[in-house]
Amino acid sequence: MEINGTWIEDEFAEAFSMKFSRFLVTAYDQYWLDHALAKLTGYGCSAIGCDAEIDVETQIPSERSPDGRVGASVLAFSFTTDTLGTAILNRIGQTILTCPTTAVFDGLPDSETRIPIGKSLRYFGDGFQKSKMVGDIRYWRIPVMDGEFVVEESFGVEKGVAGGNFLIQTRDQLTGLQAAQSAVEAIKLLPDVVTPFPGGVVRSGSKVGSRYPGLVASTYDAFCPTLVGRTTSKIAERANCVYEIVLDGTSFDSVANALKLAINAACEHDVIAISAGNYGGKLGKHHFKLHEILTTHST
Amino acid sequence: MEINGTWIEDEFAEAFSMKFSRFLVTAYDQYWLDHALAKLTGYGCSAIGCDAEIDVETQIPSERSPDGRVGASVLAFSFTTDTLGTAILNRIGQTILTCPTTAVFDGLPDSETRIPIGKSLRYFGDGFQKSKMVGDIRYWRIPVMDGEFVVEESFGVEKGVAGGNFLIQTRDQLTGLQAAQSAVEAIKLLPDVVTPFPGGVVRSGSKVGSRYPGLVASTYDAFCPTLVGRTTSKIAERANCVYEIVLDGTSFDSVANALKLAINAACEHDVIAISAGNYGGKLGKHHFKLHEILTTHST
Amino acid sequence: MEINGTWIEDEFAEAFSMKFSRFLVTAYDQYWLDHALAKLTGYGCSAIGCDAEIDVETQIPSERSPDGRVGASVLAFSFTTDTLGTAILNRIGQTILTCPTTAVFDGLPDSETRIPIGKSLRYFGDGFQKSKMVGDIRYWRIPVMDGEFVVEESFGVEKGVAGGNFLIQTRDQLTGLQAAQSAVEAIKLLPDVVTPFPGGVVRSGSKVGSRYPGLVASTYDAFCPTLVGRTTSKIAERANCVYEIVLDGTSFDSVANALKLAINAACEHDVIAISAGNYGGKLGKHHFKLHEILTTHST
Amino acid sequence: MEINGTWIEDEFAEAFSMKFSRFLVTAYDQYWLDHALAKLTGYGCSAIGCDAEIDVETQIPSERSPDGRVGASVLAFSFTTDTLGTAILNRIGQTILTCPTTAVFDGLPDSETRIPIGKSLRYFGDGFQKSKMVGDIRYWRIPVMDGEFVVEESFGVEKGVAGGNFLIQTRDQLTGLQAAQSAVEAIKLLPDVVTPFPGGVVRSGSKVGSRYPGLVASTYDAFCPTLVGRTTSKIAERANCVYEIVLDGTSFDSVANALKLAINAACEHDVIAISAGNYGGKLGKHHFKLHEILTTHST
Repeated sequence: MEINGTWIEDEFAEAFSMKFSRFLVTAYDQYWLDHALAKLTGYGCSAIGCDAEIDVETQIPSERSPDGRVGASVLAFSFTTDTLGTAILNRIGQTILTCPTTAVFDGLPDSETRIPIGKSLRYFGDGFQKSKMVGDIRYWRIPVMDGEFVVEESFGVEKGVAGGNFLIQTRDQLTGLQAAQSAVEAIKLLPDVVTPFPGGVVRSGSKVGSRYPGLVASTYDAFCPTLVGRTTSKIAERANCVYEIVLDGTSFDSVANALKLAINAACEHDVIAISAGNYGGKLGKHHFKLHEILTTHST
Repeated sequence: MEINGTWIEDEFAEAFSMKFSRFLVTAYDQYWLDHALAKLTGYGCSAIGCDAEIDVETQIPSERSPDGRVGASVLAFSFTTDTLGTAILNRIGQTILTCPTTAVFDGLPDSETRIPIGKSLRYFGDGFQKSKMVGDIRYWRIPVMDGEFVVEESFGVEKGVAGGNFLIQTRDQLTGLQAAQSAVEAIKLLPDVVTPFPGGVVRSGSKVGSRYPGLVASTYDAFCPTLVGRTTSKIAERANCVYEIVLDGTSFDSVANALKLAINAACEHDVIAISAGNYGGKLGKHHFKLHEILTTHST
Repeated sequence: MEINGTWIEDEFAEAFSMKFSRFLVTAYDQYWLDHALAKLTGYGCSAIGCDAEIDVETQIPSERSPDGRVGASVLAFSFTTDTLGTAILNRIGQTILTCPTTAVFDGLPDSETRIPIGKSLRYFGDGFQKSKMVGDIRYWRIPVMDGEFVVEESFGVEKGVAGGNFLIQTRDQLTGLQAAQSAVEAIKLLPDVVTPFPGGVVRSGSKVGSRYPGLVASTYDAFCPTLVGRTTSKIAERANCVYEIVLDGTSFDSVANALKLAINAACEHDVIAISAGNYGGKLGKHHFKLHEILTTHST
Repeated sequence: MEINGTWIEDEFAEAFSMKFSRFLVTAYDQYWLDHALAKLTGYGCSAIGCDAEIDVETQIPSERSPDGRVGASVLAFSFTTDTLGTAILNRIGQTILTCPTTAVFDGLPDSETRIPIGKSLRYFGDGFQKSKMVGDIRYWRIPVMDGEFVVEESFGVEKGVAGGNFLIQTRDQLTGLQAAQSAVEAIKLLPDVVTPFPGGVVRSGSKVGSRYPGLVASTYDAFCPTLVGRTTSKIAERANCVYEIVLDGTSFDSVANALKLAINAACEHDVIAISAGNYGGKLGKHHFKLHEILTTHST
């Protein structure tokens, strides 16, 4: 199958079920919001090497914000509800509780599974904290040096899909960079998905296993352009650069839709082939067949 | 003592010895460099709650960069050489190895204590990695999907000073925000120091201990404006907002100098008082006496 | 015709021939480059009300830059070679000559029509300027307070196409903003086109003429959602917000290609209809028929 | 006189009376506000070569904004009320009227001298515009494609001070850049002043007159490091780089205060000498004597 001259391989992306939370951070102005978000979402790329996969979902203008200030919605993914709760609690404690003027609100009020956030952070108040019910929701007001830190009692948890991906193969690096950037920007405004790697892109694709005992993963030599001839290569003919886009989303459909959008945007550049990463289909529950999502999935 | 109408309390900031490394990240252009740095330095505020305290030290233009591309120097602090090595290795593996086009270079070539970085990351190459000596320095070239990731064998480690700090007390929050922002921006271009908290500022100052057993720290109620009257307050008269600036540096002098600069910048705003955080002097080895550094320390 | 559920009207965008130049600005680092470009390209939206239509075409990393420093390519459009020359000369004199560390290079070396830039600016050197030939190209080195300002003798001029456009109609403003932003970002990396309006978008579409004598243009009431019922409306049913994307390009094909890309990106959102702005076809030489460019134009 | 090891020459900056307006721009979110401001304030460096000197004064968070959305305050300077009115009217017409979601408010409600803005722009509404009185203030609601553009009837005009300046002399360019950047950032949050040149800095200082007839200004050869020995130099010994900071403000005191702050920030770097630009004192009404403002002026 071809899109705009780009060969789409008959492959599927293999993705995993993970737990996720959505929460909203607000601040006095964009300056402090941006600083809070940068520290909150850093070093949260892959749940293999980080405590969570976390990134900004969407910006929220003052008129749509829970407290009338500028804000942003954040999505965080982890393997279990417990590890997710620990990661979010610690990250908020280190990067939001500390940041001037911020407040934090749950973004999944209807979820039954809950992780305690304000409920745990309140102890930082050393007995001076106060709770306040607004409707059904409990907020904690924790005294801090610039007033009070407002944080909701608990955040909802749902089951999402992590590791949706595809591979962009181009003749040279510059084209690859542009295609990858366009792909990620095409879904930047989309709710329900995030791209937690740097700029949304991975250039160090990995395979399961290694020749070194004890290493569970190593470079995906089949997609390394400098190894063509030294290993069994899967790189398309004439391609010399491969980038992987990795997506996490709140549902199979949100990831499928984002993959479709991102692939289409990449293919506006001079891309030789689009492929996808999988492990034979045995590890991940969700299979995104490229041909299927590109033809039948409505956006 | 007074500076520009601001009362400077006769206090000292209590800071700690920590180990640090300096390393340089370069990339194809500022777009990818910025994305790499954001993910690299996030969630690295306090060594109590994060694996390291890490932030960008200075930007490096192409003409001063080790490989002729745009770059930045990064400082990372941790309690021991071992924890520092683990933190840097994992962060580079997750956020730089993965990021399109980046390379990483040691920034402390003369240090005898070394942490293995390229030496450890090379195994990701699954036997396809190559080393290259340039002068005395060993580089590793690890095959990745956009070519090769170049990373130096090891990074130097030195002893630095973490937790230099001061407190800004103002009548209202807006003045406090402006004074804090000015303080941090006044040292943004300064080498040898970083400010790893969001925007360089902490609004949730903490004291040692808590009324809740098992909590080692809790809100610094003496500096919470909403608790005046409910606890023994140390807030200056008429002050209603307190922000703490926290600095890590490569030496006592670099921190002292930065504190002086930052305090002077804060005092250009309508600041009521400057104080500093300490634990009675028994925990931290380094004491920055405000009156001393403001009068005798040359910049 | 429909794209992804969006109705594409059988309309054409009417665009105009204009003269354009391309030139490259470089600087010591991204900080100064960004400041130079912001001042250079501001207040350059429409040649009707500004001296030129001007914007950044692409960023140039150090390894592709004429002097090994970070740079950017700029496109500027005006009605005649003379007005273009005046606009560029004055803009460079005010915003690049003044800006620390910058240099400027011609981006159309093969063009026969030339506007004098270094040739005119050199007189600022008050006799201390020097010229230097490198190959066929003359550079001027004008002494300034941070060293020398290097600027090429002349810039090439070519005939381009200005005013390529389309209209995005959505149910509400938020969807319209997202569709417009996505449309513009989809062509941000594209060479040969620029979008000189704020964020690339116009919300104040205009018609020729006015009920007030002497006004040559007035609000395009047929596309104002608040005027439905008070005027003959052309707004699609259920639409309540209309945004216009405006493009200038180096050729008919570059504009057609960009329009296609941008429309496709807009249509990934919940857009009701895409239309285009024209004046009956008598004013502008270039007609971009939506159905034609969307179906037959290759990217 | 010396500050922190920097020699402060016994010179004065010669500045001019100009008319200025202050107005507020608001938008749906920071994204569109930033785009509007970039286009609004570009190409507005010196009233000699541009229609106005214009820049952002301060950011305004939603809670302090006239319509509850994010905003910014802008200061614009020109020689006469007429030229100022023309410049602001045309700039708003080109860059704010056109920009999605924006609105504009007067920032000098008490001024008696008024320039018509909404009063003139309303005709764009082609008879469909409506006015609305809120208290004493008339607003115009002009139908546009995304709803209505709200703009105040008129803006106040006051007498301000333009061209406050000082010169930073350093051993090398990098130190000069850092000192200049620090100087400008030290006053970024300050109300009542703006720095309309790129990054607030001029590197092409000029003297009155030229050896070429008809040129009213030319390079300030006395401060060009490459001309030492070829002209009568005023550069400090050992200095090889000179940058000029240029400020406009709403009053003599606001400029004097900002100069003091900025000079102090510059002197935190390794600056050899601070001087100031003047024309012998006969052209400009306002003289800022460096020694005086640095010692006696309170901030």
